[in-house]
Amino acid sequence: MPWLRNFIQLSSTFTRQSPLRKSSALSVPPPFLAQLLRHLSSDSGGSYAGLGPTKGDEKPRVVVLGSGWAGCRLIKDIDTKTYDVVCVSPRNHMVFTPLLASTCVGTLEFRSVAEPIGRIQPAISREPGSYFFLANSTGVDFQNHQVRCQTVTDGTHTVDPRNFSISYDKLVIASGAEASTFGIKGAREHAIFLREVHHAQEIRRKLLLNLMLSDVPGVTDEEKCRLLHCVVVGGGPTGVEFSGELSDFIMKDVHQRYTHVKDYIHVTLVEASEILSSFDDRLRKYAIKQLTKSGVRLVHGIVKDVQPQKIILSDDTDIPYGLLVWSTGVGPSPFVKSLEVPKAPGGRIGIDDWLRVPSVPDVFAIGDCSGFLESTGKPVLPALAQVAERQGKYLSKLLNNMGKSGGGRANAAKELDLGKSFVYRHLGSMATIGRYKALVDLRQSKEAKGLSMAGFPSWFVWRSAYLTRVISWRNRFYVAVNWLTTFVFGRDISRI
Amino acid sequence: MPWLRNFIQLSSTFTRQSPLRKSSALSVPPPFLAQLLRHLSSDSGGSYAGLGPTKGDEKPRVVVLGSGWAGCRLIKDIDTKTYDVVCVSPRNHMVFTPLLASTCVGTLEFRSVAEPIGRIQPAISREPGSYFFLANSTGVDFQNHQVRCQTVTDGTHTVDPRNFSISYDKLVIASGAEASTFGIKGAREHAIFLREVHHAQEIRRKLLLNLMLSDVPGVTDEEKCRLLHCVVVGGGPTGVEFSGELSDFIMKDVHQRYTHVKDYIHVTLVEASEILSSFDDRLRKYAIKQLTKSGVRLVHGIVKDVQPQKIILSDDTDIPYGLLVWSTGVGPSPFVKSLEVPKAPGGRIGIDDWLRVPSVPDVFAIGDCSGFLESTGKPVLPALAQVAERQGKYLSKLLNNMGKSGGGRANAAKELDLGKSFVYRHLGSMATIGRYKALVDLRQSKEAKGLSMAGFPSWFVWRSAYLTRVISWRNRFYVAVNWLTTFVFGRDISRI
Repeated sequence: MPWLRNFIQLSSTFTRQSPLRKSSALSVPPPFLAQLLRHLSSDSGGSYAGLGPTKGDEKPRVVVLGSGWAGCRLIKDIDTKTYDVVCVSPRNHMVFTPLLASTCVGTLEFRSVAEPIGRIQPAISREPGSYFFLANSTGVDFQNHQVRCQTVTDGTHTVDPRNFSISYDKLVIASGAEASTFGIKGAREHAIFLREVHHAQEIRRKLLLNLMLSDVPGVTDEEKCRLLHCVVVGGGPTGVEFSGELSDFIMKDVHQRYTHVKDYIHVTLVEASEILSSFDDRLRKYAIKQLTKSGVRLVHGIVKDVQPQKIILSDDTDIPYGLLVWSTGVGPSPFVKSLEVPKAPGGRIGIDDWLRVPSVPDVFAIGDCSGFLESTGKPVLPALAQVAERQGKYLSKLLNNMGKSGGGRANAAKELDLGKSFVYRHLGSMATIGRYKALVDLRQSKEAKGLSMAGFPSWFVWRSAYLTRVISWRNRFYVAVNWLTTFVFGRDISRI
Repeated sequence: MPWLRNFIQLSSTFTRQSPLRKSSALSVPPPFLAQLLRHLSSDSGGSYAGLGPTKGDEKPRVVVLGSGWAGCRLIKDIDTKTYDVVCVSPRNHMVFTPLLASTCVGTLEFRSVAEPIGRIQPAISREPGSYFFLANSTGVDFQNHQVRCQTVTDGTHTVDPRNFSISYDKLVIASGAEASTFGIKGAREHAIFLREVHHAQEIRRKLLLNLMLSDVPGVTDEEKCRLLHCVVVGGGPTGVEFSGELSDFIMKDVHQRYTHVKDYIHVTLVEASEILSSFDDRLRKYAIKQLTKSGVRLVHGIVKDVQPQKIILSDDTDIPYGLLVWSTGVGPSPFVKSLEVPKAPGGRIGIDDWLRVPSVPDVFAIGDCSGFLESTGKPVLPALAQVAERQGKYLSKLLNNMGKSGGGRANAAKELDLGKSFVYRHLGSMATIGRYKALVDLRQSKEAKGLSMAGFPSWFVWRSAYLTRVISWRNRFYVAVNWLTTFVFGRDISRI
């Protein structure tokens, strides 16, 4: 029996590393592992295992909390010859948020907008002192330069969450903000946000499910109208872009592929004040006209209650829905709230002109979780990808210079000259509104003068600009391929 | 305020179809809807709503239960000028199963192997009398030519499952089989099968989670070995192909992207008798040699118990695992068991030479759920994609001819000549084993002589053959693009 002979031969070959219990003696670790084990076993003196303070023969360690625009730009640009980088985040990829709305209806695929951290900074998976940890940060001991973390194990019952700590030389808090519901009852339970890839997946699954359920014999017309009523709360760029994508999907794909129920599907966009309030008046009017043409109903109202099958506005209008997407801005996360540092207006972590958290040494905060302290005289910057990315870029430079001037270690940068402070210059805003139309507003602020345009040329600028901004060549290629196939074959409607 | 003006104008425009409660009067349905409503309201006389028996001015109705290889081939080839088609299945797409194993490690994307039913047969979403229902069939009333169904609403709490019935002129049962665990305790709870896209997604998420969890400070070496031990039970083509893909992933991607833990990850393939038992001896030996070279450990043993973190073999060996994939063949589903018709050996629905279920009129069964009755003198065919597809193709021809000869209605085909009976001719088997190697066995049966080959040329044949077999041009294009990007950029490791 060649099979059995083979197996017996094999068993003896593999004994040294075999995970079978009967032969579980572990081999002597190779040099690489030895170095690794030294790292891991250097317990920090706290109650649980972790990465201890860096020693003289190791590189100083930058710990980055978060993997959004700010954190990933910093991780990408940090000099890994000067520093070891440790990234802690509950997701192992960055989401290219401006294109996320397109994935909900299949214009783009989910993976085309997700960039693994290991590709953004390869050192994180190769260098023995650099790590990515799939974990949430639960607290910071600023006194002892230490972050406490807990692993994320969602959906797995065989592994308990594990607590560990990481000592830092420099800490960068880039953990972002949280979707805000203004305390409206039921919103968190029944609405879907649009901030992560799994949100987009949930929206796509629900939309396709509702399309199919409404076609089942015995469903009343009223129920069909409800199931196929897609309500978007919040008229910012995310809400408007999603509404535009949805109406494109309805006009092109639902009309072809769900002929039986196509007359029942509608999109309503609810906004308490003005849609796209950051854009110039002319563009806003254009957007309203185009959205209306595409069949998006615009409702001016304030949501006061969210129930499983309907929302209720402050004037007591009921709006039944089958799909409810919520996008009304962001607020500070529980982690940010829990940090005992001076806060900027809006509850964000207060930072100075160099993005430092002034009250504690070696700690920086960037992106949506941070805001200039009132003492700097500067306004809190808007929660935008371009602000976050610019801050990540600036801070990586600052840290790289610091490291080269010998200030990389904990408490070693007190006397260093930090150079120029961070100055934000707004490059403009863009938003698609469906049907190959977009808005491009290149003014530096709402009051300033400058170029603003709308229509097909803007849409072309929008696509080209984002295609060049996608981080890796792999995803740039996939986004282009997705756009091409959507154009040729239509959107994908398989519910997987 | 242009916004408000716009909204008021809009409200009046949309009043007729508005799903807002305040103005819920529904418009008079257009002609298309009227036809639709007639269909839906024709209650079948049973206890719940449904599609009633077809009338003289309607086409006869073929109801297909299932959307696998058999059902989808039939749906694709059926003449929609002669018949209305209704497909009932818990998933709205067909899975291109031979390539499913590749999606678990990111060689291919999930959507590249899923083909929406609406694209396989466009009439199903366009014709007023053709439908796809996302539902499970719960029973058949053969006497009254009626199928009972229940909608699938997984993950949605706001919609209750809905019962409905469908009257058929012809019924095709193609609901497939169920993964079989031979009653081994714990297998269904702790192992993941590899039959649907969501299984592949679960495997990918778990594999990436384990890779990341094992890198966390404080995890012991023993725990690392367990977390990163991937155990595959069942040495058929699926188990072998998955093991090969896994070892490719480990050698190319884990070694580059998870350097810290790469020495801890292993693959073990457990089989009770011989791997790839349907292949020729020479090919089997070649496969064993190649898999062993790639680091796959082959274990000859019978699993007697599955626990959350380990399996136990009949000789009391413990095999701890972090990921357990189960692929030991299939058996009849509860739906098939519940049908009161004569059964073929193995509990499948018994069929005659023309794929009819002889005891009841107008009912056919194809694919893994069916088997020749002993009285036909033919053996039960293996549960293979090519058997199912060939049966679907044959039956669509038979039904098309029947329809053209006036036998399309219920009870109208009793006297018709059915033509040639179904004869299965095996075209051969293929399986990849990783590292650009595959087996191709073109013999018609295990005893017959014929071409069989192994190695890179076979791998090339394997890829080309499957690329041409992928159903739509869209997915053919995506599979090619996926293969290309995997080759150039490596596999995607973002855990979304």
